Amino acid sequence: MKYTLRDAELLQTIFSSRRDVRGNRFVDAPIDDEVLRKILEAAISAPSVGFSQPWKFVIVQDHAKREEIYEEFVRENTKASKLFEGNLLYDTLKLEGIKESAINIAVLYKKPTKTVLGQTTQKKMGEYSVVCAIQNLWLMARAYNIGVGWVSILRAKKVKKILGIGNEYKLIGYLTLGHVNEFLDEPELLKLGWENKKTIDEVVEWV
Amino acid sequence: MKYTLRDAELLQTIFSSRRDVRGNRFVDAPIDDEVLRKILEAAISAPSVGFSQPWKFVIVQDHAKREEIYEEFVRENTKASKLFEGNLLYDTLKLEGIKESAINIAVLYKKPTKTVLGQTTQKKMGEYSVVCAIQNLWLMARAYNIGVGWVSILRAKKVKKILGIGNEYKLIGYLTLGHVNEFLDEPELLKLGWENKKTIDEVVEWV
Repeated sequence: MKYTLRDAELLQTIFSSRRDVRGNRFVDAPIDDEVLRKILEAAISAPSVGFSQPWKFVIVQDHAKREEIYEEFVRENTKASKLFEGNLLYDTLKLEGIKESAINIAVLYKKPTKTVLGQTTQKKMGEYSVVCAIQNLWLMARAYNIGVGWVSILRAKKVKKILGIGNEYKLIGYLTLGHVNEFLDEPELLKLGWENKKTIDEVVEWV
Repeated sequence: MKYTLRDAELLQTIFSSRRDVRGNRFVDAPIDDEVLRKILEAAISAPSVGFSQPWKFVIVQDHAKREEIYEEFVRENTKASKLFEGNLLYDTLKLEGIKESAINIAVLYKKPTKTVLGQTTQKKMGEYSVVCAIQNLWLMARAYNIGVGWVSILRAKKVKKILGIGNEYKLIGYLTLGHVNEFLDEPELLKLGWENKKTIDEVVEWV
């Protein structure tokens, strides 16, 4: 397969228009089963160390469980807020959409039970493979005009307990997916002046 | 921006045709500067926790440094090979293209010097942002018909020492990029029967 410049440009447009979506953007509409399947197919097309595919996706629809995870978010975010005291903006930000989204997905790393090719020196490679799957999922969701939020203000152990996930798994990401009323044209934290966008020249060095 | 089904299909084609490229596929041809810039732009379009953009890309052209990194690979791979003893296939695999590729890129995580929004509970979020950047880079390279290999059989500390990288950085991935004579239609380890491809039903659970 040989791609054209036009294909590369479309890919960049998808990269640039992908957003972290929170509860103030999700609308109350289900995700079509076939679309969800395409999004998951994209996830499992990610690279993985030694082709180990060490991923598992737990799709959380149950509202009682989502309520418990939301409560865990509130606990952790109350602690986080104290670390930003003096920054009035922090408390005004909506940082998750656990209850407003159509579904949540807990993305897990399955610890290996045998030696994995390529993971003999760097033990984190398996976890990194799962992150690649999350990024694929996020991009494909965007291509289907579905928003994704990655909720990181949660203790992994608590989430696993709520969902009944065993010790053979490690939680890598907790995602919220749904249709949206809007994709912002830029990251919200850039718009609000929380951080500036770094340029290529700031982050590249040659040796 | 509203994408069409055709856009989503093109994205899946890019995902599915992305390969881990090793030294037996790279050809001796430079990467155009403008193309490299587009690939790096893609990388820094990745999501990052709290918009922290904690990435740094060290582009390694110097042949003496690449030779040293190759020697480090050989040392680590000799150890790795012992872990697969009995599997004759392992030693026949070409697992890197450090010297054959046009350039190498060490992708680093810059440790934060202030509290990062969203990284207060899960400390790994910053590293995971860098992995998302690597996945974007890999996909955009593929869209420009450039191959990428992720070389993981290297000790991070040794690579950092060879490249003169300070303690404020952590090595996340060591990549090799170049034009190729071929993109395999499937992952090599799948073709060789090293692992089977997992299906969606094997890796998805609903609660």
